[in-house]
Amino acid sequence: MIREDLIDDLKIKWTNIQAYLCKNGCDACLLTMDVNLYYVTGQIFNGYFYLPTEGKPLFFVKRPNGLDGENVYYVRKPEQIPDFLADLGLEMPKTLLLEGDELTYNEYVRLSGLFPSAKAGNATAMMRELRRIKTPWEIEQFRISGRLHTKTYAEIPECYRPGMIDLEFQYEIERRMRKNGSLGIFRSFGTNMDIFMGSILAGENAEAPSPFDFALGGAGVDPSCPIGANGTQLKEGTAIMVDMAGNYTAYITDMTRVFSVGRLSELTYKAHQVSIDIQHEIEAKALPGLPAAEVFTMAETIASKEGLSPYFMGTKQQAKFVGHGIGLQINELPVFTPRSKDILQEGMVFALEPKFVIPGVGAVGVENSYLVTATGVEKLTLAEENIINL
Amino acid sequence: MIREDLIDDLKIKWTNIQAYLCKNGCDACLLTMDVNLYYVTGQIFNGYFYLPTEGKPLFFVKRPNGLDGENVYYVRKPEQIPDFLADLGLEMPKTLLLEGDELTYNEYVRLSGLFPSAKAGNATAMMRELRRIKTPWEIEQFRISGRLHTKTYAEIPECYRPGMIDLEFQYEIERRMRKNGSLGIFRSFGTNMDIFMGSILAGENAEAPSPFDFALGGAGVDPSCPIGANGTQLKEGTAIMVDMAGNYTAYITDMTRVFSVGRLSELTYKAHQVSIDIQHEIEAKALPGLPAAEVFTMAETIASKEGLSPYFMGTKQQAKFVGHGIGLQINELPVFTPRSKDILQEGMVFALEPKFVIPGVGAVGVENSYLVTATGVEKLTLAEENIINL
Repeated sequence: MIREDLIDDLKIKWTNIQAYLCKNGCDACLLTMDVNLYYVTGQIFNGYFYLPTEGKPLFFVKRPNGLDGENVYYVRKPEQIPDFLADLGLEMPKTLLLEGDELTYNEYVRLSGLFPSAKAGNATAMMRELRRIKTPWEIEQFRISGRLHTKTYAEIPECYRPGMIDLEFQYEIERRMRKNGSLGIFRSFGTNMDIFMGSILAGENAEAPSPFDFALGGAGVDPSCPIGANGTQLKEGTAIMVDMAGNYTAYITDMTRVFSVGRLSELTYKAHQVSIDIQHEIEAKALPGLPAAEVFTMAETIASKEGLSPYFMGTKQQAKFVGHGIGLQINELPVFTPRSKDILQEGMVFALEPKFVIPGVGAVGVENSYLVTATGVEKLTLAEENIINL
Repeated sequence: MIREDLIDDLKIKWTNIQAYLCKNGCDACLLTMDVNLYYVTGQIFNGYFYLPTEGKPLFFVKRPNGLDGENVYYVRKPEQIPDFLADLGLEMPKTLLLEGDELTYNEYVRLSGLFPSAKAGNATAMMRELRRIKTPWEIEQFRISGRLHTKTYAEIPECYRPGMIDLEFQYEIERRMRKNGSLGIFRSFGTNMDIFMGSILAGENAEAPSPFDFALGGAGVDPSCPIGANGTQLKEGTAIMVDMAGNYTAYITDMTRVFSVGRLSELTYKAHQVSIDIQHEIEAKALPGLPAAEVFTMAETIASKEGLSPYFMGTKQQAKFVGHGIGLQINELPVFTPRSKDILQEGMVFALEPKFVIPGVGAVGVENSYLVTATGVEKLTLAEENIINL
């Protein structure tokens, strides 16, 4: 069952979990959410991953059939887990971490009932904290995603035909993504974050506020998914913001570029350049130790000094936010908001997206993904940054 | 805020919820999951829908900005809800239904803390029960999805080029789906049900067991999403099962058809015909009052009589399951399993998918979506059912 090709990577993760458990006075964690299982085993199964502070992890599998190996136990239901622990001569946990921000209420209650005398803590908080710092293997996955993301973006002009609406442009880009290896699936943290492969915003639609926690909105094509493209005609004078996922491995890069149909207003080009300037400023100053809240302040200050505050991160609804961690989900830690308590650390990977919405034209600005190194940041998304006229 | 175009439909739903609350001795429900909000308001917002047993619903909105109308209240946090109820002179609920199988544990605890003296019940169970019986407007949405789903399937042969792998075939089909209006997003109930737009299974990959609760498996292209196409070459003698979503409205139809490259084995054609025979048998007998478990038994009995049990619903991992309700999510109630307690009722919409996996060839069988009428069932997915040679 263990992915031998990933064993060194997995051991780093298990060791980090055990260190966290010890530091926080916990005896074990029990994980069952897809992304967390993938993180700790390199695969997804229907079942549970149990790791005590000392010793090896145990894998309790319901499905698929056929997994085997050391410490793999097939179960019909989680209530069998304590019996297996007892048979193995392992102590029952007195403090157990469960995925409190991910498990449904009823599932959480069921799992905490396995060890009725154990105190429960939040495994989601632990996993989100640990997942911030990427391992060497994870960084390599980002590099692969970043390269293919960049390749796809270079092909975007080929996707355009005069007279298109935003949706037509989008599904031609989606096809290029898939052709270049996009896994399709797009994961985000939180229950109400419906999105499909990314978003394209053109013209007035860029001003439409969304219910979701993404940087910008868009009305969407149907009230059942109110985000992104809405059928806007790509006519002369329109800016088209492309923010499609870099999901070419399980580790998602995030990149935004802007295209135009014909010439845009001077304000539009200025705002786009200011977004690039913000990126350069932050690239120059970002390194381990920099508070994420300062990154937000740097971006907001430049936008304000340039007189662009009314357009910064939206108009009718402005996000107090310029970036976010990325990984197995598009919205990991750290988060770049005014009140963020996160501090940049080596091995974090994040997306920075200072954007402006220009009424009647569309959204502009670039978004890049960065790896935090010992001495600064390294950009992972290398497509042309100027507005490209289609 | 209220969608006036849907007001008659929404009133049916609110009345049904109130009847359920009364019948079960509950005072109110508080809903916040996307699909449930869409169901009761015809739109998605970040916030809460509160409905007491008597009177009108209240809408507590965090985002997007700009919604207004009767009974719409903007809130920063759910803790403001009790104050609004008090200001309106409404009684605090003594029994409150919350989405216990959908909300995360921590969110559920937070919301139940709004009314500390109230007893909490399960709004997920209520919503899944009520959502089984579709309203006239919902049925019309299924008809639209069914028509566009059928149109897309008729174009599938145009997506094929000799020498393709399954993934190449799939992304050409995905493009047709989007061109014909697929919303892209694919919703399922349950936390660990990752899938992207549907699945294509060809050759030996049809035997690969999956961790997910879908009818068949497939290894998938990456361990982070172990379902469906895996890069199988579409060579002579391969059956290709196409089970791509009918998500052309918020209400998803489900349909499976099979294509071949060249001639398949006689066993393969026989199994496919038996699947069609099973569908005909069930179409002839299905009507309100028929237990869902009997539908499973009918299918299994025919498969067994034809000597096809070893291939029925998989080989290495066989699903004890032949169909499921459909709606805003792909896996609604009723469920067609041996132990299902569901009974067919007028207005239910379900997908029936008796399938066979033939080792070395692929998966065969058809899947159709049906509406239960007063006197029988009406098929909503009308694409050609025989195996089509590409």
